[in-house]
Amino acid sequence: MTYCLGLDLQGGLVLLSDTRTNAGVDHVSTFSKMHVVEIPGERVIALLSAGNLAVTQAVVNLVNEGIEQTTGLETLASVPGMFRAAQLVGEAIRRVYVKDGEAMQAQNVAFDVSFLLGGQIKGRNLRLFQLYSAGNFIEATPDTPYLQIGEHKYGKPILDRVVRADMALEDGVKVVLISMDSTLRSNLSVGLPIDLLVYRRDSLRVGLRRRLTEEDAYLRLVRDGWSSALREAYQRLPRPGWMED
Amino acid sequence: MTYCLGLDLQGGLVLLSDTRTNAGVDHVSTFSKMHVVEIPGERVIALLSAGNLAVTQAVVNLVNEGIEQTTGLETLASVPGMFRAAQLVGEAIRRVYVKDGEAMQAQNVAFDVSFLLGGQIKGRNLRLFQLYSAGNFIEATPDTPYLQIGEHKYGKPILDRVVRADMALEDGVKVVLISMDSTLRSNLSVGLPIDLLVYRRDSLRVGLRRRLTEEDAYLRLVRDGWSSALREAYQRLPRPGWMED
Repeated sequence: MTYCLGLDLQGGLVLLSDTRTNAGVDHVSTFSKMHVVEIPGERVIALLSAGNLAVTQAVVNLVNEGIEQTTGLETLASVPGMFRAAQLVGEAIRRVYVKDGEAMQAQNVAFDVSFLLGGQIKGRNLRLFQLYSAGNFIEATPDTPYLQIGEHKYGKPILDRVVRADMALEDGVKVVLISMDSTLRSNLSVGLPIDLLVYRRDSLRVGLRRRLTEEDAYLRLVRDGWSSALREAYQRLPRPGWMED
Repeated sequence: MTYCLGLDLQGGLVLLSDTRTNAGVDHVSTFSKMHVVEIPGERVIALLSAGNLAVTQAVVNLVNEGIEQTTGLETLASVPGMFRAAQLVGEAIRRVYVKDGEAMQAQNVAFDVSFLLGGQIKGRNLRLFQLYSAGNFIEATPDTPYLQIGEHKYGKPILDRVVRADMALEDGVKVVLISMDSTLRSNLSVGLPIDLLVYRRDSLRVGLRRRLTEEDAYLRLVRDGWSSALREAYQRLPRPGWMED
């Protein structure tokens, strides 16, 4: 399984995915679950994926190599805005379904994928979307500025309590790491290292991209600090008064 | 949806379920999701259920009214030990499947149920089981002294960090309420009030049964206290040092 999450904050985007492998870093760089298109000064678009790997890789390939439109090949590097980017990814999902869906069904393999798509194109708004297997999508809002795909439940309670659209990016990084930590502890199928991307609104370049391993000092501080803080908080709560026996 | 959980501690059992309705309290009492068989001084057996209500009610009815064996009708009030009780519930699940499974499938309704079964019979060990739709089951152990059914993921991280077989029953009550609170906050389909049962090992009678509503002072204390403790703990963690931009 996978766990990916994204925050759409006033200051920009915080994106996090678990992943164990990665490919080359370049103008278009590919992590196993975090695919980034960066044209410095013009656009940053990140696509995070969960679900059947054959499907997600096919979708990523399609939006990289381009889907034919009446106006020519359209890619994540050429779309004019983020809404169109989401439509393009949705179209790619549907194309893969048309091509592979029936054969997968014959093998009892679920066509089960989801994506987070976040970024900004020059002169346009920063946006963060979540796409479903059907190719349709929803968008993060100031009321609910986070989106999750994959194993999302373990790490949701802390997001529900802490995330606000006006929190600082640094605090956003802190909370996504706590949310990931809760998931890592409770579900063995989600594993280190994890990939972090921070994008500052209107910067039009990747602000921070970092692979966090077991050895990362800050990640260890969050993990140990959070665990002991939880245990302490639990200890401090009183026992029920009605339980005298 | 439902969330039920049980702790098998050295001191006894702590069982908690969310539920909005209940029926009469008696020698055999029925809550919507927590069914208790108590013969004071002889046995206490609690059955907590999640999943399709028609199936879970059919199973509860079968183990109450009895399943015919070569030796006569066998019920939760007559089984000689908890392992046999788990087998009986499993047998009931399979009978309901044989009777209703095909018709349910024709209507595209999943035969999806799970149960927690905990208790003790005089002269025998206290035990806690989790039963699956197939009627098979697993047992809590000193290494993993908790079991969950239903919407279990939101409330798992705190259990993984805090629950130990040698914790006091009072502390067990505290942690199951925290776990339930995390679930209530993150999933609207799980709701108050909640039903709590505490059984002290070898007491052979229900130690505490309590329905906790929005108005319960201790529950409110746990909910508010936990929320502010989490926020505080989050605040206290430092920001990442590598994020200077």
